[in-house]
Amino acid sequence: MKLDVVKVGGAILEDEAALAAMLARFASLQGARVLVHGGGRSATALASRLGVETRMAEGRRITDAPMLEIVTMVYGGLVNKRAVAALQALGINALGLTGADLGYMRGHRRPAGKIDYGFVGDVDSVDISKLESLIASGVVPVLAPLVYDGSGGLLNTNADTIASKAAVAFAGRFEVCLTFCFEAPGVLADPSDKGSVIPHITPSIFESFKAEGIISGGMIPKLDNAFDALRAGVKQVRITDIAGIGSDGGTLVTLE
Amino acid sequence: MKLDVVKVGGAILEDEAALAAMLARFASLQGARVLVHGGGRSATALASRLGVETRMAEGRRITDAPMLEIVTMVYGGLVNKRAVAALQALGINALGLTGADLGYMRGHRRPAGKIDYGFVGDVDSVDISKLESLIASGVVPVLAPLVYDGSGGLLNTNADTIASKAAVAFAGRFEVCLTFCFEAPGVLADPSDKGSVIPHITPSIFESFKAEGIISGGMIPKLDNAFDALRAGVKQVRITDIAGIGSDGGTLVTLE
Repeated sequence: MKLDVVKVGGAILEDEAALAAMLARFASLQGARVLVHGGGRSATALASRLGVETRMAEGRRITDAPMLEIVTMVYGGLVNKRAVAALQALGINALGLTGADLGYMRGHRRPAGKIDYGFVGDVDSVDISKLESLIASGVVPVLAPLVYDGSGGLLNTNADTIASKAAVAFAGRFEVCLTFCFEAPGVLADPSDKGSVIPHITPSIFESFKAEGIISGGMIPKLDNAFDALRAGVKQVRITDIAGIGSDGGTLVTLE
Repeated sequence: MKLDVVKVGGAILEDEAALAAMLARFASLQGARVLVHGGGRSATALASRLGVETRMAEGRRITDAPMLEIVTMVYGGLVNKRAVAALQALGINALGLTGADLGYMRGHRRPAGKIDYGFVGDVDSVDISKLESLIASGVVPVLAPLVYDGSGGLLNTNADTIASKAAVAFAGRFEVCLTFCFEAPGVLADPSDKGSVIPHITPSIFESFKAEGIISGGMIPKLDNAFDALRAGVKQVRITDIAGIGSDGGTLVTLE
């Protein structure tokens, strides 16, 4: 059976109209599906209103106790429940989950090295058996980027990682298509030109584009992530904007 | 089959040690159970930090759009996910839900009368079929006091009401014991004396205590609520502190 895992992040979550368009697109997909969301910008906005400083290191949020409260409220509450309610209105039987709900995704606190990320988790295990019967009965899980630490706490985890780990875990039972949905129409050869979408990326194309500097910055971990997912059994990865969900637009990432 | 519906509110949710004790007590119950939580004090605290005024009318929170965001974050995120994670650590397979999750509890916005409560909902329906199979598989629902409005939104709803409505809905399939857990050891004949717990209240006792002024204030709607639940099929209602959960302490409320 096919399963679509769609991750939505970035500016789409902050823009009511864009979010509505994205969810409508997601709702129009046929068959089993899972939504994964981020919410970093909303967390930063709330932190700022609360006078809590947002500190980032290598693109990741340093999560002390006040910031953990904020991401629990924003990811687990505001963003998750808004998406769930909006999907219900579109006739989708959505159910919001953090890793602690049903204990489905566990992680451990990343050990402090050069940087101490605080309450940030690396994923250890995804128990999709707990979600599988829900999916079989038509439920659509909506996953917030928080994992359960196994001892009563939550840990902040990158939403792309949550999406990849969930996709890989489901790949044992489903034919999984993983879609990363963001503002741009795909991986761009020229970031200033939305018409420069690279339609297909394989590991060898990736290496040469990296060497030429065509692919750089935050797109590198995103593609590394995509290749990892494919090597672990995910059938297809697509990087696209809203219009590309469920289409053959955007950038298709495959191993060959 | 027996089902315990336990509602926790008030100061217990604000006190880490009290909450841990309450959850441990709840986890020690045998058999099927549901937890319902409030969180008004945390919502008021967050509102204050954000410079959002908390306005109450007849003991209920007036919920404008900024306050709806706050209660969505606090009830749906912070309080709910903390309880879920803590229960998971106690070996309970908890799953946090708002009314939008699985669309299990619907309500409508209370029409503006003398007071416009804003985004406050009155419960219309509880579809417990969606929770029943989860409960049968050992899942413990943790219910946040937010109902789904049927058209993409959430509405703030009193947690005692959520507990009563859920208890009544479950009463068709289970032998439901509804427990209201708060700071005091039960309904007190003298609010200043914790030793003055009224062990048993029936409608006739209630009427005479009300007439004598022994029962007053916020306890009146709580008891009205309890009698409504009993008349609608709930087997037993208990009002108690943490120690009374799963015991025969506190105040037992019955129809006869």
